[in-house]
Amino acid sequence: MTQQPKWLTPEEQDAWRGVIRMYEKLVGRLSRHLQQDVNLSPADFAVLVDLGEAPDGRKRHVDLSKCLEWEKSRMSHQISRMAKRGLVTRQECPEDGRGAFVVITEEGMATIRAAAPRHVEVVRELFVDVLAPEELRQFARIADRVIEHVESSPSP
Amino acid sequence: MTQQPKWLTPEEQDAWRGVIRMYEKLVGRLSRHLQQDVNLSPADFAVLVDLGEAPDGRKRHVDLSKCLEWEKSRMSHQISRMAKRGLVTRQECPEDGRGAFVVITEEGMATIRAAAPRHVEVVRELFVDVLAPEELRQFARIADRVIEHVESSPSP
Repeated sequence: MTQQPKWLTPEEQDAWRGVIRMYEKLVGRLSRHLQQDVNLSPADFAVLVDLGEAPDGRKRHVDLSKCLEWEKSRMSHQISRMAKRGLVTRQECPEDGRGAFVVITEEGMATIRAAAPRHVEVVRELFVDVLAPEELRQFARIADRVIEHVESSPSP
Repeated sequence: MTQQPKWLTPEEQDAWRGVIRMYEKLVGRLSRHLQQDVNLSPADFAVLVDLGEAPDGRKRHVDLSKCLEWEKSRMSHQISRMAKRGLVTRQECPEDGRGAFVVITEEGMATIRAAAPRHVEVVRELFVDVLAPEELRQFARIADRVIEHVESSPSP
């Protein structure tokens, strides 16, 4: 560090803390439900939802890592654990040299389906129904802009 | 499940995804910096910051778990790992029967201080400077309301 950083003002700090604390609170609660209902960690659930929405329920390992902003090694461990439980499988793709796919299994899909009704109920109770429609729109706009910005910024 | 859940509308879905994706993107990036600069995981950093801001740099184990919405067992493992690295210590408190304290060490404080300048720079680049002051205020208001609501809702 060659110069003093520009510290956050109290207002900037409030907003930044909001990002972190709101997520921690919401996901903390949701993960207790997920664990109780279908024995999934938040990481398991994130991977299953991401694959479940992809064409043919599959994504390249590298794209899955990028999408969730995880290091490749973290994703590898995660996928190995999930494969052991039968939630996903690996599909090698030697011909195109662009790396293996991860594919959601029938059991993985069934697990998301089992979790979904209660999950959506809790998301409503804790977040959606707390805000007015206009606030939800504001929020989504802000989030989209930030997400796009991060994606277009160079990663260390 | 006795009845069909009230699924999210596309607008509600956008907002909810915003919560998750924005956090994942921002914290994913930040954690690469933290790992590279001071060898801390996001969980290590969250605990250190929480303790660093508490009176006397200490908090009861149970309050720390509640604040971060972690299960007690997850917090115990986390604290054991951090204690081995000398970032925190445990302080037993047998007289009052309300459980042990976790205390940040000098080394823990030094680690936060070392991480802070670059951390704040990245928070600015990726979040604060992307939004107008009015948006930061809107965002903080929304987050505060959600956080309060979750805290006042019964946990499973």
